[in-house]
Amino acid sequence: MKILLIGANGTLGSAIDRELSARHEIVCIGRKSGDFQVDISNSASIRALFEQTGHFDALICAAGNVKFAALSDMGEEDFALGLQDKLMGQVNLLQIGREFANDGASFTFTSGVINREPIRTGSSAAMVNAAVDGFVKAAAIELPRGLRVNSVSPTVLIEAMDKYAPYFRGFKPVAAAEAALAYAKSVEGLQTGQTYQVG
Amino acid sequence: MKILLIGANGTLGSAIDRELSARHEIVCIGRKSGDFQVDISNSASIRALFEQTGHFDALICAAGNVKFAALSDMGEEDFALGLQDKLMGQVNLLQIGREFANDGASFTFTSGVINREPIRTGSSAAMVNAAVDGFVKAAAIELPRGLRVNSVSPTVLIEAMDKYAPYFRGFKPVAAAEAALAYAKSVEGLQTGQTYQVG
Ligand SMILES: NC(=O)c1ccc[n+]([C@@H]2O[C@H](COP(=O)([O-])OP(=O)(O)OC[C@H]3O[C@@H](n4cnc5c(N)ncnc54)[C@H](OP(=O)(O)O)[C@@H]3O)[C@@H](O)[C@H]2O)c1
Ligand SMILES: NC(=O)c1ccc[n+]([C@@H]2O[C@H](COP(=O)([O-])OP(=O)(O)OC[C@H]3O[C@@H](n4cnc5c(N)ncnc54)[C@H](OP(=O)(O)O)[C@@H]3O)[C@@H](O)[C@H]2O)c1
Repeated sequence: MKILLIGANGTLGSAIDRELSARHEIVCIGRKSGDFQVDISNSASIRALFEQTGHFDALICAAGNVKFAALSDMGEEDFALGLQDKLMGQVNLLQIGREFANDGASFTFTSGVINREPIRTGSSAAMVNAAVDGFVKAAAIELPRGLRVNSVSPTVLIEAMDKYAPYFRGFKPVAAAEAALAYAKSVEGLQTGQTYQVG
Repeated sequence: MKILLIGANGTLGSAIDRELSARHEIVCIGRKSGDFQVDISNSASIRALFEQTGHFDALICAAGNVKFAALSDMGEEDFALGLQDKLMGQVNLLQIGREFANDGASFTFTSGVINREPIRTGSSAAMVNAAVDGFVKAAAIELPRGLRVNSVSPTVLIEAMDKYAPYFRGFKPVAAAEAALAYAKSVEGLQTGQTYQVG
């Protein structure tokens, strides 16, 4: 399969690349790194990406930014960041990317644990992760041509604990390689409308 | 308690008013109807509302608009409507309203069944409802002064079946009066961070 991997250079994305590259052609995409560049928060940039990559069999998004801050410090524009980037970025990857997707192609998005187990400073992340999972469930039933869409909701990654440990005390982190398995299940399996929880 | 009820004139809101008005002082608020007016999609309008109502013990929002359309017809601005109105409207009611909320006051928001059981044309509703429930769960743990926040997620209402039946074939509708009980549970109980499912 020809798989577009957005965020291929990241903590999660590089593990997904390692899991899938032995069996598939991976097109590595980043904001600055990779074979192609995109800013998922900008739908014109998304369209420009697909015009360069051409048709594909699977798209994985392991990118997406949200603001982490105390609820009392979160203004409208702080929530808007996550809505425009991690949420609408992934929605637009489906809505624009479906034009370039081969029959039976899959889209696999990334949410995360924070809407299942909320943490301090996580109100936007919880909102956005839940929205991604809710969107995937509903969008799946309306897709034509055997197109599929799932999300993966990992807990905090071992490889990210140097940065994130203070926010995730008591959480049992998982290896990025274990989270990567869920992306293989989504891409190489046949389910749709699912959220694969890891950890 | 002094309870601000936004959407008091609607299908759901009028049932909530009937459930609570025997025991509490209800301030009825609508876009055009009621004692006070607000457009929840506009944060300046929300602030102006609270400056008129003054302090309160509970706020209930039984309002919120999203676009219903086939996924293939949903553009960015269609998703933006639900994000700005039903989602950020309720988020801003908490973020601005907390300044006017008495110690121990509660906020009760409305999501809905569509992220649990998706329907045709429901991709934005599913996204927004999930986001509301996710936000409530995370925001609850960061609120000071005993402030609480919950959501109610009703299935389709009997009273709305004349309009909505074609979208909800096979769903067992509930009476608005039954959904109204969940708002009483939220306001008159002590839980926080909950989503009360009705139906
Ligand atoms: N790390 C964790 O513990 C964890 C756990 C659960 C969920 N997640 C979620 O997984 C996703 C990736 O996290 P990560 O920790 O792997 O991040 P990361 O290490 O910071 O990597 C992010 C990757 O995404 C790319 N990127 C960032 N913003 C982008 C944008 N607007 N448009 C396109 N590409 C963009 C970056 O490109 P460049 O390389 O060019 O900068 C980079 O390749 C996030 O949504 C995060 O919330 C992470
Ligand atoms: N009806 C159902 O079967 C059902 C089921 C599950 C969830 N819900 C959810 O429950 C909520 C209310 O639904 P409903 O059927 O009761 O609606 P409705 O009968 O149309 O009533 C809506 C009420 O909200 C007010 N309103 C509308 N837009 C507003 C805005 N931007 N700012 C402030 N107030 C606004 C209206 O004011 P005016 O009276 O002045 O016009 C009206 O009082 C919605 O979020 C809906 O998704 C409904």
